Amino acid sequence: MDSVKIVLDESRIPKAWYNIVSDLPVPLAPVIHPGTKQPIGPDDLAPLFPMDLILQEVSTEREVPIPEPVRDAYRLYRPTPLYRARRLERALDTPAKIYYKYEGVSPAGSHKPNTALAQAFYNKQAGVRRLTTETGAGQWGSALALACRLFGLECTVYMVKVSYEQKPYRKVMMQTWGAEVIPSPSTRTNAGRGILAKDPKSPGSLGMAISEAVEDAATHDDTKYSLGSVLNHVLMHQTVIGLEAKQQMEMAGDYPDIVVGCIGGGSNMAGLAFPFLADKFKGKKLRVVAVEPEACPTLTRGDYLYDFGDTAATTPLIKMYTLGHTFVPPAIHAGGLRYHGDAPLVCLLYHHKYIEAVAYQQRAVFEAAVQFARAEGIIPAPEPAHAVLKVIQEALQCKRDGTSRTILFNLSGHGHFDLQAYEEFLTGRLEDYAYPQQQIQQAVRELAAIQP
Amino acid sequence: MDSVKIVLDESRIPKAWYNIVSDLPVPLAPVIHPGTKQPIGPDDLAPLFPMDLILQEVSTEREVPIPEPVRDAYRLYRPTPLYRARRLERALDTPAKIYYKYEGVSPAGSHKPNTALAQAFYNKQAGVRRLTTETGAGQWGSALALACRLFGLECTVYMVKVSYEQKPYRKVMMQTWGAEVIPSPSTRTNAGRGILAKDPKSPGSLGMAISEAVEDAATHDDTKYSLGSVLNHVLMHQTVIGLEAKQQMEMAGDYPDIVVGCIGGGSNMAGLAFPFLADKFKGKKLRVVAVEPEACPTLTRGDYLYDFGDTAATTPLIKMYTLGHTFVPPAIHAGGLRYHGDAPLVCLLYHHKYIEAVAYQQRAVFEAAVQFARAEGIIPAPEPAHAVLKVIQEALQCKRDGTSRTILFNLSGHGHFDLQAYEEFLTGRLEDYAYPQQQIQQAVRELAAIQP
Repeated sequence: MDSVKIVLDESRIPKAWYNIVSDLPVPLAPVIHPGTKQPIGPDDLAPLFPMDLILQEVSTEREVPIPEPVRDAYRLYRPTPLYRARRLERALDTPAKIYYKYEGVSPAGSHKPNTALAQAFYNKQAGVRRLTTETGAGQWGSALALACRLFGLECTVYMVKVSYEQKPYRKVMMQTWGAEVIPSPSTRTNAGRGILAKDPKSPGSLGMAISEAVEDAATHDDTKYSLGSVLNHVLMHQTVIGLEAKQQMEMAGDYPDIVVGCIGGGSNMAGLAFPFLADKFKGKKLRVVAVEPEACPTLTRGDYLYDFGDTAATTPLIKMYTLGHTFVPPAIHAGGLRYHGDAPLVCLLYHHKYIEAVAYQQRAVFEAAVQFARAEGIIPAPEPAHAVLKVIQEALQCKRDGTSRTILFNLSGHGHFDLQAYEEFLTGRLEDYAYPQQQIQQAVRELAAIQP
Repeated sequence: MDSVKIVLDESRIPKAWYNIVSDLPVPLAPVIHPGTKQPIGPDDLAPLFPMDLILQEVSTEREVPIPEPVRDAYRLYRPTPLYRARRLERALDTPAKIYYKYEGVSPAGSHKPNTALAQAFYNKQAGVRRLTTETGAGQWGSALALACRLFGLECTVYMVKVSYEQKPYRKVMMQTWGAEVIPSPSTRTNAGRGILAKDPKSPGSLGMAISEAVEDAATHDDTKYSLGSVLNHVLMHQTVIGLEAKQQMEMAGDYPDIVVGCIGGGSNMAGLAFPFLADKFKGKKLRVVAVEPEACPTLTRGDYLYDFGDTAATTPLIKMYTLGHTFVPPAIHAGGLRYHGDAPLVCLLYHHKYIEAVAYQQRAVFEAAVQFARAEGIIPAPEPAHAVLKVIQEALQCKRDGTSRTILFNLSGHGHFDLQAYEEFLTGRLEDYAYPQQQIQQAVRELAAIQP
């Protein structure tokens, strides 16, 4: 019988994260203070993050050791399985070999705990008592709630109010792990009170929730803020995915021709792809593909400019492909991919053509997700379902070419909390959102004023 | 670093199920035809089940080989991990060693696919085109939907109407895997039409749904019926859980003093415990504990009598501990434990004191579940949360005794679709249901008339 799952022993959980900054073909553009237009330093970030994470953010070391308590927490779900999608291959009748790394086995159901656990550990070590963060549908908030519980920190999650009311299950998950979940905008912060004064019925937005979480952290000495994607250290923590996958591909006697990941902020794709890109920098032949929604097509349609990281324009300026921080993406079900920018590391690599990108409509994405679920059993979250569609297209291309290529993708989470979206698709009620060209052009034009 | 997960290689998925019938200290009482009061034979079951499963139902072979296509499907999620609950041990400050076998990694989120896949395979082999079944909240229905999809069968699930309307997520899961889900009572069957004629607004019940699923199968030549617990062959299929756990305990250099499982129909507890009971029959010292809800206390308060397997009184008579088939258990959240009887195999072993039993209220159960989730990360389904409470009590007893005992339990599923119940608990709205003494006494009295 041919193997389906490639399983690593606990002892082979990586002992160090891979820091791609050390291998970059060109250096990252500096992060700029929006007032002074000068590069920011570690001290500028100290009110929000503990120094260990700030130093990781600017580190150029190739390997950063994973502290034993973090590895110990990883062992609750890591190493995650690598699957050979033999049933999907048969269903597609393709000569391609399809592999996927499945991160949905974490208690929070996604890859997000890989960085949440590390961030909780460093904050605890720095004497922090409480972490704040924002969450939309709750994927990131639940990962941080779990991590705070395991490391003995309090956790305050500002959850976009409309999600808090309409999608209560992830809220309950966070509360089960002991987090305080606050519908945002709230009366807890100046930012929230200001918004409510203007619009008492505001449904909230991720931008508003970020403002509240940042203010809460900045105004309390024992409290820091935690972010689930975009930043260098967050992407680095996620490289445990790819570092494990490399060992597992080796056990399978194989190496990918194509690595595929969906992209919202970048941590999912980067987590799997960066350790393979390390080989590409040395000359290995390899395609890396980032898949984004057509409704929020940052890499495929954005401009490479300085922009704020948040919609409220409170963060430093970072250079990235962006649709403009004032652009509000349509309400697609892949909530985790609704971000106006992308991680600076991913953008740099895309700009220099180490990474390809492609954008899809959501109906085609859900069609691929259902096809995957019916072959492999696992029901994908809407975000990695974007990667599934690209994988199926590449596999069908192999069939047309009569060539066997090895395709690896990141199945970063299950869809147990997204079944409403599946129901809309199955009953024909799911709608596509075309490229919102005019709104994006307008939002990008506004960026001219803030370029350094 | 001490090991947390004990992971088996795919090659060590069992090659045969363990049939405890071969080792029983006393023989099982025969299954009786309610009309003739005579033992039934294989032919009586042929309209509903394929002959391979009927022969397994009456088999006395100690080992029944698992067909390769079933093992192949098992490999989508098996072997499942065995966890050492080190974080829970630390939280309880107990000298006890706590292990759990985690079946929530299956695509359906529970242990139910272990038998669903086997049943789908044998039906497919017998030329069956379609399977019918009933489901309450959807745990069993989703397992069978997955299994039918993987083996190329159509699947019709009669889902209790009130669950269909109030708990839509598992319905969508079944539909995603391609099953037809029908709210019961329906106009599809004589049984359903009869119920609707009397009460057009009937919310349905598991008993009604069974009647519809059985009638649908019995009246279509290419269609059979599938049951998710109680029967001998169903429990036997579940022994893959315990057979794997024995290998994993051996890898950990340990052997349980106590094996704990929750009990509704019996397949969860039996699946883990039966392979260990094989050792107990040979003199090994071992306690096996079945945990049931105080609202439906079949073993602890029921009588050992002949009764119908279903509430509609359409099945053969089986000897079991029962609360009477007319007894309707209160609407506790552990829907999978709301069964008036228990598997005849479990009842026989309980009667002869090879198994202990204990019953709990649901608030205490959810308190234990939250404690477990906060220590181990995984949020348990309400059913195995009953086992969690017993495990915590035994661990605390070890602490009082100053003794280290090894405790193993079956964490048969996650609670991703039960978070509403967690919310009720966390907000203080969850209610206990006391032992419904009068209703049970009345229902048991009625059984006198049907005893052979």
